[in-house]
Amino acid sequence: MKEVSKLLDYRPGVTVLDATLRDGGLVNDFYFTDEFVKALYRTNIRAGVDYMEFGYKASKEMFDANKFGKWKFCNDDDIRAIVGDNDTDLKIAVMADVGRCDYKQDILNRSDSPIDLIRVATYLSTIPGAAEMIEDAKRKGYEVSCNIMAISNSQESDLKAALDMLGRTPVDVLYIVDSFGSLYPEQIARIVDIYMEFAEKYNKKLGIHAHNNQQLAFANTIEAVGDGVDWLDATYASLGRGAGNCAMELLLGFLKNPKYNVYPVIQFVEEHINKLKDEGVVWGYDLQYLMTGLLNQHPRTAIQFTKDKRRDYSEFYREIVAQD
Amino acid sequence: MKEVSKLLDYRPGVTVLDATLRDGGLVNDFYFTDEFVKALYRTNIRAGVDYMEFGYKASKEMFDANKFGKWKFCNDDDIRAIVGDNDTDLKIAVMADVGRCDYKQDILNRSDSPIDLIRVATYLSTIPGAAEMIEDAKRKGYEVSCNIMAISNSQESDLKAALDMLGRTPVDVLYIVDSFGSLYPEQIARIVDIYMEFAEKYNKKLGIHAHNNQQLAFANTIEAVGDGVDWLDATYASLGRGAGNCAMELLLGFLKNPKYNVYPVIQFVEEHINKLKDEGVVWGYDLQYLMTGLLNQHPRTAIQFTKDKRRDYSEFYREIVAQD
Repeated sequence: MKEVSKLLDYRPGVTVLDATLRDGGLVNDFYFTDEFVKALYRTNIRAGVDYMEFGYKASKEMFDANKFGKWKFCNDDDIRAIVGDNDTDLKIAVMADVGRCDYKQDILNRSDSPIDLIRVATYLSTIPGAAEMIEDAKRKGYEVSCNIMAISNSQESDLKAALDMLGRTPVDVLYIVDSFGSLYPEQIARIVDIYMEFAEKYNKKLGIHAHNNQQLAFANTIEAVGDGVDWLDATYASLGRGAGNCAMELLLGFLKNPKYNVYPVIQFVEEHINKLKDEGVVWGYDLQYLMTGLLNQHPRTAIQFTKDKRRDYSEFYREIVAQD
Repeated sequence: MKEVSKLLDYRPGVTVLDATLRDGGLVNDFYFTDEFVKALYRTNIRAGVDYMEFGYKASKEMFDANKFGKWKFCNDDDIRAIVGDNDTDLKIAVMADVGRCDYKQDILNRSDSPIDLIRVATYLSTIPGAAEMIEDAKRKGYEVSCNIMAISNSQESDLKAALDMLGRTPVDVLYIVDSFGSLYPEQIARIVDIYMEFAEKYNKKLGIHAHNNQQLAFANTIEAVGDGVDWLDATYASLGRGAGNCAMELLLGFLKNPKYNVYPVIQFVEEHINKLKDEGVVWGYDLQYLMTGLLNQHPRTAIQFTKDKRRDYSEFYREIVAQD
């Protein structure tokens, strides 16, 4: 919390990205209604959000298009059906996973696409693949960011090597991702220090994507912005995989740039997110997510626990400790 | 987050107080079953919790004993029925509000009581009354702490004057209380600085009691412990007024002193807190609490909104902004 230390001022470079459809799609297999997506798009514009992530550019060879909603694949035509020519200040983003995206064919030239930003997502073990996708997207004219996932169980020296490799690519933004929701604000501050070294060396921006396993997604996000991280991911009502993400309504309430407006977010949650909840879509902080976060484990066991409507937390804890 | 900066070590002076019955009692008018209270007592012992707060010593002249459960009043005999001679390492606390407690008669000598700690709660406007209660409790042989409530809308110079007055009393612990859940970690750090000046001058310990309106109760608590605050309030599953408190399961997961054990907490939540929820007791983070927190308002309007089972967040926002 060093930089925005007055809290009353703001840093103009701070950029908010709405990841509701993409991370939320992991909860409902991307089956959002067009009404929901259109309302979200209009709300983001009114709220002053900078980027809206529509979903993944997932490989149709690897994933059956009949088993997922369309935002798993984000065809340009489907995006265009929502945003038209997108003659607004809101930019459009999609995520492309290394090894799960036929980017050469599925990502068109930016001049032919409604998309502005390609978000390459990689593990530490696939950085060369990420670099290739970054080069491809840049050649096609996009802004490009790169999420390095699951860093909380990686070696610091490997992370530094990866950041040095990515620094030499034309990527614009390097993202800190707390995939397991296991990091505390103090650790975020230390990780920002590491990322910042390479951001300064290679003239990159930094971003953060937090998860709420320990009710720290918002706290970690404001820690990061105070430490100089500019790009902030959030989702409406925390909608996202497992324990969910940094809540957009918390983040816009915190940020002091007058271009941001929390009221439309509140309206959207009331009208559209409550409906999702009523329909049985389940996400958000609960003890099973706290436990996987605490143990720095992937949340997949906790997600299964949730799907099975189990409530025997203590048995679950014994199970995951035994697997640890 | 300056002091516990390795996260892997611990500070022996850190003390955890379970406020579940007292702050949770504000949600269900203190109607806990004896089974619940006994199980909580046993769980706290197993979890290594240092203090268990049973409730208030509320004036029976001001409050009708027929309209509240017994933990609003905490008769020594009722506590003894749970703890017997309390031949354990867990100490017993009660809260006494300035102006709402007949402390001269209702607080007995410690030698005749199962209670160890009297927690005097005061507003900035009633510090002399608090000082008198502190003196009385000390004379009777108790440990004494003092919560200064609602500091987020007070003047810093008034706060300093109050801390100087309280410093000259025999109080043991001065508590930072974020009554409205409106403070960010960076503000907690600044407030700790102010409190620490007087804690050092007068040789007092510091404590923190956080609320979860902005999902920051845990984050603010670990910020404070990193800044040198030793006494940490938490409640099981955040049970407490409005948005609730710092969750015990998060806090014990974070603290590294081996005397703390999160597993019994998980068991208690599974067996007893889930039942409360099923019975319709409602607390915890929701947008109405975010809004009052954001506006630094008392949560009473949000509590009413919750009681009325309203979900029209945007209308509520308009209402409380209009009152602001």
